[in-house]
Amino acid sequence: MEADKMDATPENIGQPNRTRRKRKQYKGVVALLASNRRAAYELEMAQNQIDQDRKNMREEVAGVHRKYNMQFKSLFERRNTLLEIVPNFWRTAIKHHPIIGTILTEADKDFFRYVTRVEVDSREDNVFNFKIRFHLDYNPYLENKVIMKDFHLTACPQFCRVTNLKFRKNILETYKFLDRKRSSRSYIGYKSFFAWLTDNSTPRRDDIAHYFRFDMQMNPMFYYSHKPIKLPGFTKKKCNHKNDFPVPVKKVVKMRKKRGRRGRK
Amino acid sequence: MEADKMDATPENIGQPNRTRRKRKQYKGVVALLASNRRAAYELEMAQNQIDQDRKNMREEVAGVHRKYNMQFKSLFERRNTLLEIVPNFWRTAIKHHPIIGTILTEADKDFFRYVTRVEVDSREDNVFNFKIRFHLDYNPYLENKVIMKDFHLTACPQFCRVTNLKFRKNILETYKFLDRKRSSRSYIGYKSFFAWLTDNSTPRRDDIAHYFRFDMQMNPMFYYSHKPIKLPGFTKKKCNHKNDFPVPVKKVVKMRKKRGRRGRK
Repeated sequence: MEADKMDATPENIGQPNRTRRKRKQYKGVVALLASNRRAAYELEMAQNQIDQDRKNMREEVAGVHRKYNMQFKSLFERRNTLLEIVPNFWRTAIKHHPIIGTILTEADKDFFRYVTRVEVDSREDNVFNFKIRFHLDYNPYLENKVIMKDFHLTACPQFCRVTNLKFRKNILETYKFLDRKRSSRSYIGYKSFFAWLTDNSTPRRDDIAHYFRFDMQMNPMFYYSHKPIKLPGFTKKKCNHKNDFPVPVKKVVKMRKKRGRRGRK
Repeated sequence: MEADKMDATPENIGQPNRTRRKRKQYKGVVALLASNRRAAYELEMAQNQIDQDRKNMREEVAGVHRKYNMQFKSLFERRNTLLEIVPNFWRTAIKHHPIIGTILTEADKDFFRYVTRVEVDSREDNVFNFKIRFHLDYNPYLENKVIMKDFHLTACPQFCRVTNLKFRKNILETYKFLDRKRSSRSYIGYKSFFAWLTDNSTPRRDDIAHYFRFDMQMNPMFYYSHKPIKLPGFTKKKCNHKNDFPVPVKKVVKMRKKRGRRGRK
């Protein structure tokens, strides 16, 4: 809930037709103020001035963002290239984030071993829209090389879309990747990383995207080297292994060993 | 989830000591890059530059907000004074808001008859902190003349506080004003206006405050003269009268009549 949240939101919720709105806007108030024309006129003037000021403010703020985003872009690019040589960097950083970390299932954590790069880009033409990109190595889960979640927050209505995920054969049957039920294990309610990734219903209030954009992107090294802090009023429940890996016991044991060899963080 | 949401949030979640953080920050990464000093140095430089740019950007954005908030302040003041002469203005506007409207119980709606003025103020020293004030006429519910919810979003940790509510005798027993249970009637989960008002647990993610600040404050006349639009995937359930007014049937009938006389909207 911050000051300039307004800038990215359309002025009010769900008004498809701006001109029609303008005409209707003061009807009720003006009718009531019929006896007081002076007041009605002043009210309209004040509201018009507010609308104009808001528009100007939004443009000025966008200008500041545009200026700095150009600088950020090359810095992020350089930093992300350097981070590629650190083994399991993004897995550890994301696991340690106090909010994003809580949505990861065991299967997600294993998947994140293959994520080599996480990028968050603002559009140049419109700084309030952005994309989150996950670059993948060859991996046993997905055929995609890049998965992307794309936020259009200044569109009306706002929307969000995701790369078409191509899961490898049988993987969806083995792991509950797309389980949408809410989970008390996660602070934010999502049951898994993929449940968040494929949920396009509320782009504006997508907190995980927000944390990716402003915590993870701005300073991933902090999360890499710090264990997550405790969140007030939330005790992280352990992942329910039976639900995440609904596979025969033998297979689970095998996988754990495999992980051990690779050096679990 | 908008571009400059970052500006109002402390850089990362829950780091009380900034200098200590700085020192520890790159420990893990630098250790891993010991074999590659050049890369480690570049990484640190890039991150320092990002931190500096973020700080500058935040200051520039705050400057823009400060400039416009001065203009807004006098405009809002003038508009709100004019709106005081419109009977039941804020009650109707708030009732019609597609999100805020859903949290109101019948008792809340009756309470809002006595709200003469709603103000949202940004602090001059720090534009990302704000207060929402409800000015009250003499009313049968509260002894307070003004109730205020005060958001400190740039403090670390963020907090929020509310005027000490002085309910009149027996009123809390008659109406379930402070019931905190979640409700399927409301889009956002709050069971009543007072449940939101007294909930200080998550100031950063307080959506109702956001809508008060950026929808209600910016253009209340729109909501006054428009019926609420339908929200996707949400059918507003009728208020459960038995739960909101747990009073004998005779009394309920009496109150309904009273409302009718006053001209219900």
